[in-house]
Amino acid sequence: MTELQNRQFKLTSRPVGMVKRADFDFATGAAGEPGPGEALVRVLYISLDPAMRGWMNEGKSYVPPVGLGEVMRAGGLGRVIASNDPSLAVGDTVVGMTGVQDYAVVKASQLTKVDPRLAPLPRFLGALGMPGMTAYFGLLDICQPTEGETVVVSGAAGAVGALVGQIARIKGCRVVGIAGGPDKCRYLTDELGFDAAIDYKKEDVGKSLRQHCPKGIDVYFDNVGGAITDAVFMQMNVGARVAVCGQISQYNNTKPEMGPRLLGMLIVARAKVQGFLITDFMPKFGPALVEMAGWVKSGAIKYREDIVEGFENLPRAFIGLLQGENTGKRLVKL
Amino acid sequence: MTELQNRQFKLTSRPVGMVKRADFDFATGAAGEPGPGEALVRVLYISLDPAMRGWMNEGKSYVPPVGLGEVMRAGGLGRVIASNDPSLAVGDTVVGMTGVQDYAVVKASQLTKVDPRLAPLPRFLGALGMPGMTAYFGLLDICQPTEGETVVVSGAAGAVGALVGQIARIKGCRVVGIAGGPDKCRYLTDELGFDAAIDYKKEDVGKSLRQHCPKGIDVYFDNVGGAITDAVFMQMNVGARVAVCGQISQYNNTKPEMGPRLLGMLIVARAKVQGFLITDFMPKFGPALVEMAGWVKSGAIKYREDIVEGFENLPRAFIGLLQGENTGKRLVKL
Repeated sequence: MTELQNRQFKLTSRPVGMVKRADFDFATGAAGEPGPGEALVRVLYISLDPAMRGWMNEGKSYVPPVGLGEVMRAGGLGRVIASNDPSLAVGDTVVGMTGVQDYAVVKASQLTKVDPRLAPLPRFLGALGMPGMTAYFGLLDICQPTEGETVVVSGAAGAVGALVGQIARIKGCRVVGIAGGPDKCRYLTDELGFDAAIDYKKEDVGKSLRQHCPKGIDVYFDNVGGAITDAVFMQMNVGARVAVCGQISQYNNTKPEMGPRLLGMLIVARAKVQGFLITDFMPKFGPALVEMAGWVKSGAIKYREDIVEGFENLPRAFIGLLQGENTGKRLVKL
Repeated sequence: MTELQNRQFKLTSRPVGMVKRADFDFATGAAGEPGPGEALVRVLYISLDPAMRGWMNEGKSYVPPVGLGEVMRAGGLGRVIASNDPSLAVGDTVVGMTGVQDYAVVKASQLTKVDPRLAPLPRFLGALGMPGMTAYFGLLDICQPTEGETVVVSGAAGAVGALVGQIARIKGCRVVGIAGGPDKCRYLTDELGFDAAIDYKKEDVGKSLRQHCPKGIDVYFDNVGGAITDAVFMQMNVGARVAVCGQISQYNNTKPEMGPRLLGMLIVARAKVQGFLITDFMPKFGPALVEMAGWVKSGAIKYREDIVEGFENLPRAFIGLLQGENTGKRLVKL
């Protein structure tokens, strides 16, 4: 095992503002050996997620920050090539927090076995992985949309947003997506069946929302925050529900951005705003994955992966994700 | 009836910023006569509420604004002196939206009969009225505090806040109140049994919260908004719940105040923030009033009214309320 060359990107400095290539340090070394209860995984796909930006910051959050000099944390999919735990065998396909590297030693208890015959491998990091579960529980559990309601989703062409809108359509809602650029907007309406899409880079979001949400907004799934979210809050119906999944517009701020105070609007609308982390819903993943798999299989849910080839391109691909250049789930294929 | 002289304050201009005496016009005229289904009420107490500030503004809200030249809207308690509806008899004591005047013609269906033998009359506009129900449902229904949790309430010495803290104490919570000035803070800790009180006019609220909430904040009942609320949001525990009852710090702004964007904190804390209007809970008032009455009778809940004498003093008393000069429920006695 020790002859396996392991490429890694380590966190070398805490980014100030937007992430730079120089915040990562490329290194090579020998792959590790699995200790008791561990497995060695050959990573095939690395997942790029906006949440990774938060993990690069110092300070208390829902998980400890990545330490300086440590391999950058990331989700991944791979094959078990050595196992020191009875629950995993060589050849098993697994997902878990494998990090930005070719070979990862991971506790078997923190890996999830998937069946590669059920779907193309990248799907297990997308519609049938964390983004799928995030969309499913954030929309259905927190917002509980009902038929005929109007659902707005920001970051709508991203890994999570694209699924949120399609699940809302399945539930009989009117769905309006907010995304950046005409290509993403066409993708939402022409490929994914959104009722309308708003290009926040070109349109006055408030005005376009009034046009596309003539009955107001009942549900808002927020991936973005900032001025887009301000505009949505202005048009919430009585009893509106907001799931706060991400705030990608804010992640590279060096200090908290100021915005209009919004809490007063919640009184008038008797609205609920709830933040969530998908890891809290893990005990309920089983039946949700079955339902998602059915929708994907039937074509009720379409899904696009944005696959970047080559380990060396990962930092650039991650920076591009933070700048909104991806459509669908962004992965790096090793 | 028509010989009864009726004093009124009418809304004569929409305030810009803080309310001024000149926004109200004093008028006298004859009391009206009740039409079919209506009653004529001799008003004894007029309730002063922060919400009245919102009713003075133009624009869409949860109720239509008070029209210019119309009698200012307000809750009140009074005696029926003429009735044109079988549900009410002369001599009945009632509460309802009687407006800022001596005599009000109100639909019988919009008046609630109370039993004056059960409590002193002002109590029916306080602990056993809307403020009581607001505290009860906002805390117990929306925030669902459990024993041992830490509850923070802003506007803690006001009509609602004082009750919120005491109900939370009854439920076995640690209770920290935020109020303005040493007298109010002493009232909270020495008379009402709060565990701690923070004087926002003198103390660094964030620092004092850290001191008085060593286990973080599980529940926040917000009457105030603004910088006080920012400080609370910084210290929320995982699973925190926030009831947004009022935002009195914002009501006199001529344009939305800017503040740090807070939604990102909701993700880390998986927190829920919910705005509410007490009118939505009316169908559930019955058993809640019984429970509140029991707590008041047993002394588990103490309550102070801040009674201003004289109709002519109402505008000044209302402006003082918006500036935070009251401790407990402010009423005007006619």
